[in-house]
Amino acid sequence: MIYLDNSASSFFKPPAVIKAMANTLKFLPFNPSRAGHSGALKAGLLLYRTRTNLADYFGGSAERVIFTGGCTEALNLAILGGIKAGGHVITTPFEHNSVLRPLYHLGKTANVRVTLVTNPSSAASAIRPETSMIIINHVSNVTGQTADLMGFASVAEEKNIPLLVDAAQSAGHIEINMKGLGMSMLAIAPHKGLHAAQGVGALLVDEKITLRPLKFGGTGTASSSPIQPDEFPEGFESGTLPLPAIAALNAGLNYTREIFDANNKKILGLCARLIERLGEIRGVTLYSKPNVCGIVAFNIYGYASQEAGDVLSQQYDVAVRCGMHCAPLLHDFYGSKEGMIRASVGCDNTLSEIDFFVGAIREMAGITQ
Amino acid sequence: MIYLDNSASSFFKPPAVIKAMANTLKFLPFNPSRAGHSGALKAGLLLYRTRTNLADYFGGSAERVIFTGGCTEALNLAILGGIKAGGHVITTPFEHNSVLRPLYHLGKTANVRVTLVTNPSSAASAIRPETSMIIINHVSNVTGQTADLMGFASVAEEKNIPLLVDAAQSAGHIEINMKGLGMSMLAIAPHKGLHAAQGVGALLVDEKITLRPLKFGGTGTASSSPIQPDEFPEGFESGTLPLPAIAALNAGLNYTREIFDANNKKILGLCARLIERLGEIRGVTLYSKPNVCGIVAFNIYGYASQEAGDVLSQQYDVAVRCGMHCAPLLHDFYGSKEGMIRASVGCDNTLSEIDFFVGAIREMAGITQ
Repeated sequence: MIYLDNSASSFFKPPAVIKAMANTLKFLPFNPSRAGHSGALKAGLLLYRTRTNLADYFGGSAERVIFTGGCTEALNLAILGGIKAGGHVITTPFEHNSVLRPLYHLGKTANVRVTLVTNPSSAASAIRPETSMIIINHVSNVTGQTADLMGFASVAEEKNIPLLVDAAQSAGHIEINMKGLGMSMLAIAPHKGLHAAQGVGALLVDEKITLRPLKFGGTGTASSSPIQPDEFPEGFESGTLPLPAIAALNAGLNYTREIFDANNKKILGLCARLIERLGEIRGVTLYSKPNVCGIVAFNIYGYASQEAGDVLSQQYDVAVRCGMHCAPLLHDFYGSKEGMIRASVGCDNTLSEIDFFVGAIREMAGITQ
Repeated sequence: MIYLDNSASSFFKPPAVIKAMANTLKFLPFNPSRAGHSGALKAGLLLYRTRTNLADYFGGSAERVIFTGGCTEALNLAILGGIKAGGHVITTPFEHNSVLRPLYHLGKTANVRVTLVTNPSSAASAIRPETSMIIINHVSNVTGQTADLMGFASVAEEKNIPLLVDAAQSAGHIEINMKGLGMSMLAIAPHKGLHAAQGVGALLVDEKITLRPLKFGGTGTASSSPIQPDEFPEGFESGTLPLPAIAALNAGLNYTREIFDANNKKILGLCARLIERLGEIRGVTLYSKPNVCGIVAFNIYGYASQEAGDVLSQQYDVAVRCGMHCAPLLHDFYGSKEGMIRASVGCDNTLSEIDFFVGAIREMAGITQ
């Protein structure tokens, strides 16, 4: 199989990540921060080191790194826990359903209103007195398009409105500095660009932000009270944390820090070549420009995207993702009612895989010409 | 280290569990149910097999096995997603904060009222027209006391009130049949009695129950809509699922099914011996009877529980859990203001470890006599 679905979950997992996950399960199967014995303390140390590593890499504060089940939960915590009833939110049509669906829910249950914009100056014009959050998808999971984060951040900073950045696709591919850019919250998906494991995400939160928890339970703190403690980060991490996935995240981040430039240069090169070659095929409509996340969205004349995906999987054993990619408003924006074909390049793809894939698309397009 | 904190997280992980987790990360790093390619389909098959395995073992329905980040999230989903504003809940003083804290939150924000009972006949008397759920901790995480589940279930069934069972401690130690007992919802913690990994839990839900989701986002279904789909189980599993932990859960459940009788007989034997020997020590107050979950709670005259835990860890390198164990109302019930010492036996503990531990407690108790 040629795997071009790295934006869903990256295929390449460094040996250190696999070892970290397995060794943590085998040798450190303790519940961190829940007892005073040496096992729990070692587990707690791993937790602390991972928070510190993330905070250092993304320019946040270690005690404000909240571990979640994944990026979706991180975004839900920021949105459901951060926006008050009657509030107003500015976001883009390029958002994932992990942003749109919580916002829709708040619209129905808490009278929260949303304005869609596509650039910072429209965002500035859309601000109202009750605007309580700006939410920006750093890199589109469908097209790879990168938002003008600096522009949005300066609007947010000027008006003192919290900026939430969905870095599901970008973390590991584009350097992000929360403090440098004035971001309030950053949500990441470690199993994608950080080459870590499914099963953990993180929300990094600026010190000025207050949140309400999504879930309630044991936090290892204030155990004698049935009232949820509101301290960061424990108050937002109820229940046993996924230590094996957290160990994998720590190892994946270390790998990413080492190999960042080389990996992303390679991905950008393969992505640019893929876009160039697809652009030469009659009947192909491209929606992407070369990007360091390796995302290439396109359609083939005469094929619904899902149909093309089935042919690619069944006839060529190539894995791509087709359809709506959980981003319904993006397809309204582009008028792509039948979705798009998304090929997403990873650091372990090769030039010959890209060329084989282009050959497959050429054959498929030829049939309908 | 002698590990007697298996109720927090079991120490023993079968080789098949470790292999399942590592191999899934290495060879199956795909996003299940999110694309049509062979990788995603294989990942989807593992998901389906694990749902079927759980449903078969616990007497539920595969399409109503909801994967969560852990047992705490499963309980939160059942409580926050299942109880309507103004509702009334019957539960016990033996509940964990993963039940008490969401209930407290609903009390504050949705006028939900709670009655505490300690037996089925009190539960029957406490029922009101607006009673919308009975919540029972199957086995206390502090004392190992087993609830009269059959009694509570018959009250719930007679009055047609949903029964939620917190099986965090019991799953893997006591056979549970949802349909047989008339349970509506069952929450499990696979990293404890099923010897699987931290990072996944499950809520098994009866077909009569409707729920509201806790979080919103990509479900791999109805992607063209920003409205959260309400189908089971996907509508309640937004975001990428933790496939390595799910694979570990499947392997852990297979192991448990094979070794159930032998393991639990051994744990019961060690637990009974520990209780018997501790009972002979002057100054020891016991709160537990022999139980198949291996949980033994006690105190030593002259020691606050945390203080005893520190001595056990630092002087004897024995890992126990002390304090409140996230069950504040239980300590009100027992009057144990300084908490309890909890030793929880696992299937890999030995007789000589138990005897060493008893010797340590005897020495500690001797100092204050």
